[in-house]
Amino acid sequence: MTNPTARPGGRTARIRAQVLDAVRAELAEHGYDSLTVDTVAARAGVHRTTVYRRWGDVGGLLADVYDAAGDDDWEPPDTGSLHGDLAALNEEIQAAMVMRPPIMEALIAASFRSEAAADAQRRLWEDRYVRCEVIVERAIGRAEIPPGTGARRLLVTATAPVYHHLVLLRAPLDPALPADAARTAVLAAVAGAFTEGS
Amino acid sequence: MTNPTARPGGRTARIRAQVLDAVRAELAEHGYDSLTVDTVAARAGVHRTTVYRRWGDVGGLLADVYDAAGDDDWEPPDTGSLHGDLAALNEEIQAAMVMRPPIMEALIAASFRSEAAADAQRRLWEDRYVRCEVIVERAIGRAEIPPGTGARRLLVTATAPVYHHLVLLRAPLDPALPADAARTAVLAAVAGAFTEGS
Repeated sequence: MTNPTARPGGRTARIRAQVLDAVRAELAEHGYDSLTVDTVAARAGVHRTTVYRRWGDVGGLLADVYDAAGDDDWEPPDTGSLHGDLAALNEEIQAAMVMRPPIMEALIAASFRSEAAADAQRRLWEDRYVRCEVIVERAIGRAEIPPGTGARRLLVTATAPVYHHLVLLRAPLDPALPADAARTAVLAAVAGAFTEGS
Repeated sequence: MTNPTARPGGRTARIRAQVLDAVRAELAEHGYDSLTVDTVAARAGVHRTTVYRRWGDVGGLLADVYDAAGDDDWEPPDTGSLHGDLAALNEEIQAAMVMRPPIMEALIAASFRSEAAADAQRRLWEDRYVRCEVIVERAIGRAEIPPGTGARRLLVTATAPVYHHLVLLRAPLDPALPADAARTAVLAAVAGAFTEGS
């Protein structure tokens, strides 16, 4: 084990990285329509049989792109205030959405075509919302918002307008939106909008 | 002009209705992939040349489905309270999203495939948000929320979670969400979240 590149796991991981890079690049450049196991294998420089055996089909490839995206040590922002955390989170979301090449946009579009991709996207977002719950716990700890504030509902309220604006309304980038949507969610939380039975 | 069915406008309108019904039915049953001018023409019982001449291509057909949807006398709910109006609006949105056959879902999916459909969807939503501004004006008139409350931001805050939940997160139907999201927007508005410069 002195040479880490000789580990079987190393080769497998390297092939996975090459293949998933190829999926992202193909998606961003040509969209879902031209995404096939063969174009991905060719771009990755990997034998097509390897791709078929490991990922099965395009849905399997897309699902693994999502799974790889969730397999990180991402932590939500920790700025010292609820508004700061939510605004920073929304800035991250907005930056990912307008990134070029448009990988996130292409992945969302693909999720309307493939059940496997839709399931994987749902799992990734679920994981992200769970990781963000600490933002709300810290705010309760600082007595910024009432105890019992529901983290999930607060987080969806803060982030949904950013997705809605860019993904569904396809409106021009609004630089004020991340902070505005964060502030709206904070004011609603302070007013008790997310406490059970209130 | 004594026989209204003999008017050229009547025949044109009838053909348009047949063709757009066929587009919606094909979309709902088979999705964007099998939507072609030929399948639509066959289903509508209209000559394909007529469809090509008038709508050009699939993008033109989809755009006209959106334009037809906006060409109505829809008015937002008027229940006597801001919360009631927003909750009723969200109920309408949720009902449209879960409707079977899934026409609205299919149209949103198609908007990721066709620029013409995306533009038409944007126009339709823009028109709906403008029509809904009266909800906010009435609430200001009843002194429920501060004068100067921005209608558009309030309306997006109220409705975005419903779209986010069903379209992007593809979460199971949450019967409480329409009223919850409405209530959140009302509390934020009362707290001054949507007044300029606050």
